[in-house]
Amino acid sequence: MSEFSITQLDLDEVARSQRRLQDYIHRTPVLTSNSLNQRFGCELFFKAEHLQKTGAFKYRGASNAVLQLDPAVTGVATHSSGNHGAALAAAARRTERVAHIVMPDNSIAAKTAAVKAYGGQIHFCEPTQQSRETALQALVEQGHHAVHPYDDWRIIFGQSTATAELITEISDLDVVIAPVGGGGLISGACLAVQADDQPIQVVAAEPAGAADSYQSLQQGQRITSIKPDTIADGLRATVGERNFAVMQAYLQQVVLVDDSQIMQALGLVWRHTKQLIEPSCATVVAALAQQPDLFTGKRVGVILSGGNVDIDRLLSSLE
Amino acid sequence: MSEFSITQLDLDEVARSQRRLQDYIHRTPVLTSNSLNQRFGCELFFKAEHLQKTGAFKYRGASNAVLQLDPAVTGVATHSSGNHGAALAAAARRTERVAHIVMPDNSIAAKTAAVKAYGGQIHFCEPTQQSRETALQALVEQGHHAVHPYDDWRIIFGQSTATAELITEISDLDVVIAPVGGGGLISGACLAVQADDQPIQVVAAEPAGAADSYQSLQQGQRITSIKPDTIADGLRATVGERNFAVMQAYLQQVVLVDDSQIMQALGLVWRHTKQLIEPSCATVVAALAQQPDLFTGKRVGVILSGGNVDIDRLLSSLE
Repeated sequence: MSEFSITQLDLDEVARSQRRLQDYIHRTPVLTSNSLNQRFGCELFFKAEHLQKTGAFKYRGASNAVLQLDPAVTGVATHSSGNHGAALAAAARRTERVAHIVMPDNSIAAKTAAVKAYGGQIHFCEPTQQSRETALQALVEQGHHAVHPYDDWRIIFGQSTATAELITEISDLDVVIAPVGGGGLISGACLAVQADDQPIQVVAAEPAGAADSYQSLQQGQRITSIKPDTIADGLRATVGERNFAVMQAYLQQVVLVDDSQIMQALGLVWRHTKQLIEPSCATVVAALAQQPDLFTGKRVGVILSGGNVDIDRLLSSLE
Repeated sequence: MSEFSITQLDLDEVARSQRRLQDYIHRTPVLTSNSLNQRFGCELFFKAEHLQKTGAFKYRGASNAVLQLDPAVTGVATHSSGNHGAALAAAARRTERVAHIVMPDNSIAAKTAAVKAYGGQIHFCEPTQQSRETALQALVEQGHHAVHPYDDWRIIFGQSTATAELITEISDLDVVIAPVGGGGLISGACLAVQADDQPIQVVAAEPAGAADSYQSLQQGQRITSIKPDTIADGLRATVGERNFAVMQAYLQQVVLVDDSQIMQALGLVWRHTKQLIEPSCATVVAALAQQPDLFTGKRVGVILSGGNVDIDRLLSSLE
């Protein structure tokens, strides 16, 4: 049994999180593209979280967690080396705290540079789950507050604000689609729609090579045994317990997309919108192509999750 | 002697072009970036012409030319294979004309695809200047109207509207900077500032490997003998006669930047703004780093010229 009941969730926390965050985050723009509307036969409204601080929606959740800490807590910690690590570092610095980020010692330079750039303190460990957890545990024992990247209500409600902004700004959406990895963004989307009480369907896009959310929902229980194999590096995490509970209650459907579909969608978005989104983020556009019956003729809110692509690799391809 | 006098130019043509174009072009947004402001120590206002139709400012000039044609003219022609070719194709189609684009038979697939996508009719020729001009001449003799990519007042005033929009929207700019290749965009910028009568300096960014504008201004006459060698493929053209005359009269300065500076600037813009601009476009940001005394502490309008980077190469680098 899980430690919480989904029916006891206070959905006013979406609005409270919006107020808590409003001076800390960017209210990102909603972008449109006639070319993509024509291509997919629907009206698309892109919530541009790649333009969020630190280049991803993760800054919302990280800030929402940090802003609720006791002033006596001076350090936070996590072992996410991706967008959450950078976001937590930036959010911590904004409230004059230090973020301790456990990273495997084979991390690429771009990732360590991003964490450092936001003032995070890096603690290298061996590249195993065991080593990461041991290192994080040691930091917690030193008094730092661990902030999980997605399986945490402060994070989930923080991420919900992206969808809350979108459905407030754009009226009469039929569907909202967001990617699912650990499930912070998509469970936040579900809660934002529930709180707003509009008849909007929430759909998740998931890489076929990391289909743990899809399988978990099919089987009615969290599947944690899947070894992810996908180019969408931001979506390799295993769905969290709280996230899964919200998805079970409120998610319409998971659309699976394979890596070649993701890359094709990435090219489409780059070409037609000139927005430098990352592969994980392109899953939502791949899903439009994969399952058109869910979207054709509809007003579709599309959460673009982030833009932290490997710039150095892109640059080298042009030389 | 040139065939025209710069002093006889009617600067009201900037406003007339704005009115002529308003239902045809995107009024592109002005973007800002705190990170880049901090880095360069000035206030930057990016005019996002990479979000213009066809992905570049070229659509303004092409539309301005096409919209002034006699209705009896049903075909236009050019031998530009880059952004102008695609822009002319799209502008012609918008007024129910056909654009005939002469392209060398070794053009890359992405460029021919772009022209075709906008309804342009491609006429392949051998990859020599002679062959291009012969092919264009043949099209003109068939009754098609040739539209030069930059050395044409309709084009120059069309491009002027990008700067006109920027200096109307953002008050009290000290400097406007734009790239220079053939000189359509930068001479348009000069005329927009003249027409507006604000005390704004206009600065050009030029690749050191295609420094014909720089050298022409130094020597007081158009230098047409330079063989361009730069990654900024949109800026390899030789400055036009009309463009040079405007620059001689009104341009403050040309800042030269080498290819490594261009690529570094490209990475900076991609990283901090997530806007997929092309290398030619990054010259303006390279110039901020190269000659900080021109910009420090000032309000700087930066014309981002285009975003037609080779998407397929970028994608392949991630696989």
